[in-house]
Amino acid sequence: MNRENTNQTSDEFVVTPWEVRGKVDYEKLMEQFGTEPIDQPLLERIEKHTGELHFMLRRGTFFTHRDMNFILDEWEKGNKYHLYTGRGPSEQIHIGHLVPWVFTKWLQDKFNVKFIFQLTDDEKFVFYEDLDLDDTHSYAIENALDVIALGFDHKKTEIIIDTDNAKTFYRIALPIAKKITFSTVKSSFGFDNSTNIGSIFYTSIQAVPAVLESVRQGKNVPCLIPHAIDQDPHFRLARDVLPRLGYYKPASIQCSFLPALGGPQGKMSASDPTQTVYVTDTPQTVKKKITKYAFSGGQMSVAEHRKKGGNPDIDVSFQWLKILFEPNDKKLDKLEEDYRNGDLLTGELKAILIDKINNFLENHRAEREKARDRLDQYLIQD
Amino acid sequence: MNRENTNQTSDEFVVTPWEVRGKVDYEKLMEQFGTEPIDQPLLERIEKHTGELHFMLRRGTFFTHRDMNFILDEWEKGNKYHLYTGRGPSEQIHIGHLVPWVFTKWLQDKFNVKFIFQLTDDEKFVFYEDLDLDDTHSYAIENALDVIALGFDHKKTEIIIDTDNAKTFYRIALPIAKKITFSTVKSSFGFDNSTNIGSIFYTSIQAVPAVLESVRQGKNVPCLIPHAIDQDPHFRLARDVLPRLGYYKPASIQCSFLPALGGPQGKMSASDPTQTVYVTDTPQTVKKKITKYAFSGGQMSVAEHRKKGGNPDIDVSFQWLKILFEPNDKKLDKLEEDYRNGDLLTGELKAILIDKINNFLENHRAEREKARDRLDQYLIQD
Repeated sequence: MNRENTNQTSDEFVVTPWEVRGKVDYEKLMEQFGTEPIDQPLLERIEKHTGELHFMLRRGTFFTHRDMNFILDEWEKGNKYHLYTGRGPSEQIHIGHLVPWVFTKWLQDKFNVKFIFQLTDDEKFVFYEDLDLDDTHSYAIENALDVIALGFDHKKTEIIIDTDNAKTFYRIALPIAKKITFSTVKSSFGFDNSTNIGSIFYTSIQAVPAVLESVRQGKNVPCLIPHAIDQDPHFRLARDVLPRLGYYKPASIQCSFLPALGGPQGKMSASDPTQTVYVTDTPQTVKKKITKYAFSGGQMSVAEHRKKGGNPDIDVSFQWLKILFEPNDKKLDKLEEDYRNGDLLTGELKAILIDKINNFLENHRAEREKARDRLDQYLIQD
Repeated sequence: MNRENTNQTSDEFVVTPWEVRGKVDYEKLMEQFGTEPIDQPLLERIEKHTGELHFMLRRGTFFTHRDMNFILDEWEKGNKYHLYTGRGPSEQIHIGHLVPWVFTKWLQDKFNVKFIFQLTDDEKFVFYEDLDLDDTHSYAIENALDVIALGFDHKKTEIIIDTDNAKTFYRIALPIAKKITFSTVKSSFGFDNSTNIGSIFYTSIQAVPAVLESVRQGKNVPCLIPHAIDQDPHFRLARDVLPRLGYYKPASIQCSFLPALGGPQGKMSASDPTQTVYVTDTPQTVKKKITKYAFSGGQMSVAEHRKKGGNPDIDVSFQWLKILFEPNDKKLDKLEEDYRNGDLLTGELKAILIDKINNFLENHRAEREKARDRLDQYLIQD
């Protein structure tokens, strides 16, 4: 299937819901997708409600949005929004997947709102030739554990697995599907005549969680979708269609990708173990991966590094600390400064990151196993 | 949507799952669709198992098939088939809809097999701009009453309403959808870029009942689909795809259409009350419709009719008796002879038909109301 003809903004990079390739120019992408930058006035407006700004906002990891002001307008009128994000289940969750989920958890805590998490086992199945539905369903269950492990409150959180919740979802997807033509999905996703009809239909299923609360409550409930920017084509389409069915446009707040270990060439792939750290990796594996593969912004020799200093902007270890593992600004600034002036060596920076990741993952894996017994509290029953 | 480019066999008639127009040449249609005629050896083979032939077989109303010999081969090896047919629910059921159902009831009685009836409220909704899902679902419930009223044994009969059974159906439809490209539905149904993605996906849902028993039993169960020939494109596609998923090709046995009151120009439309008799029509309405609209094969005056005789081949009243309301061959032969030689006038023939229809409908409506309390015995629960 030719997925490149619409989401390729230049010869240098490609961003579609199924593929990210090349060094992403986020400014260009924002312009191409038509999203708004998160500017200072918006940050201040958010802070007014949250009391502080999450480091992913402070540091621009969440950098663009659609209709955040609408969400806050409604909020100020007493009209609560709900959160929605999701994942095409994969055999393993890597730490890049956690970025929007960690941020969503923060939003849920600060605003005390409902959160719907969609596991699209149907999508994964129809788009990937070699996967069967038992695979994608078991991935969904395993991935759900990673979501729960982050600490979402089950009283405010629902996890949907598309094939398990098809009774609810199919009925709500049909009116959405009725308003979307093949022309539209062709241009939104780069489909062609060889695309299978499951893939063609699928986007209507991804739109459902955005209106699920409205359907249940029988009134319009605003929806905010925190997500990585590659999913924008689905929600852009949903924003076009849902108002024609009487719903609000879903709003979104979008992040960039955690760079792959090999360097800031787009998003890490779940299928290349040398480019990512899985949540199930042992401390030894994490150490080996970071030591061996994490792209360094340092110099060729210690002497040269002491003299010229390193470049944290391209150093993957620093970027991972900035994006996910070092929430403390002072500590991060110190690392940046020390690295830039050569006081901190790449090996030392890597050791700090390895330690942070392993601490995080030790806790995550423990929570993940505890979550197994609590799955039923989160999964919705059709 | 351009649905005509594939199922139009000549300038004279069009047969698609959504439209029948013009005087259908069934020989040509059989050739175009690639179905087999029901010949004498096949009739004898069926009779060997049923002890007699239903009048719809004797008179050629069911005139064509796919793989009936496979069904009987398996039967003779002790491998039971199951029956499947269905309907895109409509506000009213007309007597033309009953033809394949009456025949299916006979097959079920003779072979003592399971029967699955699918009410495609999803299809009706996505293909018809002005219908909403509450409409099509309530039609489905009402249409189910007409199926039950025909006397199907609830121990051997399941009625499916697609939106109610989506949990079961969506999961089974996905692997089917994954094997069907837009190219294929484009050429099978004449879809184009303006077709909505719900319509594009739909055929995978219509294929599900053909494999439902195989999925449930965990082994291949042959499926026989009695249906009017306009639905052949769906099942032709299912026959192409299902073997690639390890299932048997569904077999089919197909009938021609009950002619509209105005004459044998294709299939009667459920939406034109002057061309059809609804199962809910009062005796007065039936009398008026037949008297006023039933196309006559008789002569202009009584004197001329007595002299030249009438033509039962084009007389709609005679055709309705032949296809549905007079199972007795001797009585039908006598009517034909009397009409042909002028002893029987059109008015007299119409009076016989009116009487037959009203007797049938009186009983049908009574059974239909009784069915309301027994719906739960037939509807499957997801």
